[in-house]
Amino acid sequence: MVKKLLSVLKGEPAQVPPVWLMRQAGRYLPEYRALRANAKDFVQFCLTPDLAVEVTLQPVRRFDLDAAILFADILLVPHALGQKVWFAEGEGPRLEPIRDAAGLAKLAYRAELLAPVMQTIKGVRAALSERAALIGFAGSPWTVATYMIEGQGGTDHENIRKLAWSEPKLFAQLMDVLVDATSSYLIAQADAGAEALQLFESWAGTVPAGLFERAVLEPTARIVNAVKARHPQVPVIGFPRGAGGWIGRYAQETGVDGIGVDQMTDIAAIKTTKALQGNLDPILLLQGGDGLRDAARKLVTAMAGRPFIFNLGHGVMQPTPPGHVAELVAAIRA
Amino acid sequence: MVKKLLSVLKGEPAQVPPVWLMRQAGRYLPEYRALRANAKDFVQFCLTPDLAVEVTLQPVRRFDLDAAILFADILLVPHALGQKVWFAEGEGPRLEPIRDAAGLAKLAYRAELLAPVMQTIKGVRAALSERAALIGFAGSPWTVATYMIEGQGGTDHENIRKLAWSEPKLFAQLMDVLVDATSSYLIAQADAGAEALQLFESWAGTVPAGLFERAVLEPTARIVNAVKARHPQVPVIGFPRGAGGWIGRYAQETGVDGIGVDQMTDIAAIKTTKALQGNLDPILLLQGGDGLRDAARKLVTAMAGRPFIFNLGHGVMQPTPPGHVAELVAAIRA
Repeated sequence: MVKKLLSVLKGEPAQVPPVWLMRQAGRYLPEYRALRANAKDFVQFCLTPDLAVEVTLQPVRRFDLDAAILFADILLVPHALGQKVWFAEGEGPRLEPIRDAAGLAKLAYRAELLAPVMQTIKGVRAALSERAALIGFAGSPWTVATYMIEGQGGTDHENIRKLAWSEPKLFAQLMDVLVDATSSYLIAQADAGAEALQLFESWAGTVPAGLFERAVLEPTARIVNAVKARHPQVPVIGFPRGAGGWIGRYAQETGVDGIGVDQMTDIAAIKTTKALQGNLDPILLLQGGDGLRDAARKLVTAMAGRPFIFNLGHGVMQPTPPGHVAELVAAIRA
Repeated sequence: MVKKLLSVLKGEPAQVPPVWLMRQAGRYLPEYRALRANAKDFVQFCLTPDLAVEVTLQPVRRFDLDAAILFADILLVPHALGQKVWFAEGEGPRLEPIRDAAGLAKLAYRAELLAPVMQTIKGVRAALSERAALIGFAGSPWTVATYMIEGQGGTDHENIRKLAWSEPKLFAQLMDVLVDATSSYLIAQADAGAEALQLFESWAGTVPAGLFERAVLEPTARIVNAVKARHPQVPVIGFPRGAGGWIGRYAQETGVDGIGVDQMTDIAAIKTTKALQGNLDPILLLQGGDGLRDAARKLVTAMAGRPFIFNLGHGVMQPTPPGHVAELVAAIRA
């Protein structure tokens, strides 16, 4: 019996769409906060298999979702490349920014630093329900590079845009480093038992048009190719958040099996036969009630007959009452 | 002799595209900073015709641009509606946020508060070169409402999304108030001598898909209709920044004559016969040199034969050396 998420990613529509939620494991769950409270450092929290297995399983256990997503962080790759990464309480991630060739030359991917992630994957697979598929993930090169160059999340990404425009060779080298590291990391995740993989391009919306091929389309295609060469059966979902008018080319040119869609995009209007995943506004989940149920049904109806995975358009918001997730899943399956 | 900007907005391609730049009047110019230094309050600075005329003309004088854009601010409309608006140094705009029906009920548009803007327009028209057209402007309802509800710029716009989803009637009322005020304001600008009008939808990129019609397409269409009813010859440019995949419908359904395009969008790939305006990455203007000239020429070539207005994809960045603007204009006209 093929898990529903995987058959949808092969292009087969489901009567009732499979459902999982970005950031389904996280601070909105009291059982997550209880575990997190005892662990000071977030990177080490992600790299402690017992904790990461438990946190990955928490939402699947509570809500009987169609997928578990590995509990980890897209900044584990810069960490494994030797860049200093830390999470300041209430401030989001911080990194010692890289701005020049010397900083870039120091980067070297040490796969062994991420070995605990592979243990987590094995632990989750051993405990997972028959319904739920395990999704591994990584950040896409532009998005990860943005953090590496800016030193934080930010919104305008001026430093990486400056670098990409004025030092195209250095930028290409950085993309190469990230394509190689990310490919290795995802292949290792599939080796360990990840049944699908998602590439988070969270900052696709800030890429200037003249850089989109070099920054997003080509690096993503190279990673997908590398993963498919080793694991042709493992589907890859790309999530180019904010990509807007680029979604068509992203779907055609990167080789992904499914496309994650943000809540700003008219998902039903996307012309593709590939699987689409999304895109309820997380605000609706936060608010709950009739508004949530109506919007969920409307989305399911709009995507009927197409290969579709129900998800949010972005992560679960921290103040979301867990009961709303149960309501959402019930509405989708009603 | 019709000014080039205006003939392009009628759909006629120009051999050499007209050029102006968003935020061409502003802090990157020393002559602007000199005037601004003596004026404490930014709202009053905008509402002092002598100063606003001079500041509007400064970049046109320096760079012989094809358009002047009225020096004003999109938050003058909330100001004229009775909302408290102020600009904290280095922090961006702040407003006393409106969150409920009682706050909304207090709003009443007082056109006389914006009479100085009309004096500014008259003053600019009297002094403007034969080449340059005067563009008036306002913020679009969703974008202005975002500031009014959030109380600041922000990035996630959670409060307005909550309000729009959970209180659709209140949200519709707010859109009505803004459609009416903005229409009156723009009609008055055209009465005073504005030769084209631009609607800034700076936050189009955060509108959830299920709200886009109600928040962007319909309010914009109503304003354009109202303006055209009084001034059928005054072209309207809509700038839905971050609208991505919605640009096609925005071009078809709002009635605008031209579409402003952000730097994230592949402008040459937009299928429309309407005028397009954009979309050089402001970072390239900041950096100057060969990168700027090459990108400018590439953009001009890509848009050759189409009705096209050269602009940036967003405003001039404050640290931009003014000499780079001169270089850009020379490269476009070479």
